[in-house]
Amino acid sequence: MAQKIYDLTIPIEMGMPTYPGDPRYRTRQLKSIEKDGFALYKVMMGDHTGTHVDAPCHFIPGGITVSDLPLEMLNGRARVIEIHNPEKVDAPELQELLHHDNFRVLFKTRNSLLWRNGRKFKKNFIYITAAAAQLIVDSGIKLVGFDYLSVDRFGDETHPVHDILLRNQVIIVEGLNLAEVDEGSYDLNCLPLKLQGLDAAPARVILKG
Amino acid sequence: MAQKIYDLTIPIEMGMPTYPGDPRYRTRQLKSIEKDGFALYKVMMGDHTGTHVDAPCHFIPGGITVSDLPLEMLNGRARVIEIHNPEKVDAPELQELLHHDNFRVLFKTRNSLLWRNGRKFKKNFIYITAAAAQLIVDSGIKLVGFDYLSVDRFGDETHPVHDILLRNQVIIVEGLNLAEVDEGSYDLNCLPLKLQGLDAAPARVILKG
Repeated sequence: MAQKIYDLTIPIEMGMPTYPGDPRYRTRQLKSIEKDGFALYKVMMGDHTGTHVDAPCHFIPGGITVSDLPLEMLNGRARVIEIHNPEKVDAPELQELLHHDNFRVLFKTRNSLLWRNGRKFKKNFIYITAAAAQLIVDSGIKLVGFDYLSVDRFGDETHPVHDILLRNQVIIVEGLNLAEVDEGSYDLNCLPLKLQGLDAAPARVILKG
Repeated sequence: MAQKIYDLTIPIEMGMPTYPGDPRYRTRQLKSIEKDGFALYKVMMGDHTGTHVDAPCHFIPGGITVSDLPLEMLNGRARVIEIHNPEKVDAPELQELLHHDNFRVLFKTRNSLLWRNGRKFKKNFIYITAAAAQLIVDSGIKLVGFDYLSVDRFGDETHPVHDILLRNQVIIVEGLNLAEVDEGSYDLNCLPLKLQGLDAAPARVILKG
């Protein structure tokens, strides 16, 4: 019996929400079946478009690049944890939910509902606090998945959560849609494009279980 | 004991080989840690860049798009078959190698050696014949992986192999590097970007086993 596959990936399409300041996704059709016998497109996008992986060198000088992230960390068992706090992922709540055998955790928050009719970027998304980020590091977690386009509170120019996680080699996966997935343990496949030397890459992310 | 993971993906980088007529891969750095506190890039590429998946609508009017390809077909058991013919993958040789329990096959040819110092596109790559393509369809195969940038012979404007495979809903994965992988059965994860409505998408492709 095959396992069910959940696609956690946001469709990449014109008009999709992007983080303010990031390039918009655009395509240009270069060839068509009608005129040329085959289709061909050019695509243009930021490296943090849609569902994507942040590598340490997004914020940390000399940090590892997205093409060098170990596939052994990006793929394996992962736990989906539902966060009921409507404002933030904070340490006291997280303390009870994290176990030392979780290397990969995906936080499902109300953010996942923002993708439903979400053409516009929403600034008041649920974020992770610096205390929670430190707890994540101290718990031995190596990959954090999140269901909006940043883990830091919008407008916080000190971006403490990126800083704490990436400085400690914790891989960040942003822009997941976890609306259809229940809490529990799954097989995660998180495969970012192999964009050589870049600080991030769009990814396709699935769960099996 | 964790399984070994093989990365079959060509690095996406400036100067990489692309199929003649396809856009070159380019990046533009928009933000840097030194000046802005974080890195951000814009990337521009064709939708058939590097290791990529062809969907039926690349050649077949009204064919399914790359974002609608079933994840259940892109992921699962796959067999790596080594082809020793130095010119083409042809039906007589293939007849003995294919079994009716193979839904996904990856052909390892001498093409995989072309990636070694392969900045320039090579026109004389090993290709698949129309007879072999028909045999693939008749054998019930649903996904074919290949280790260069086209399954059709270079310069064949009738592109029979794309036509036969895509018309019969066989997913084509091109641009694999199989140099480090032995013949055998593996778990395949082939995850193309979710480029809504397009005829192809760059992918990250791994084997476990």
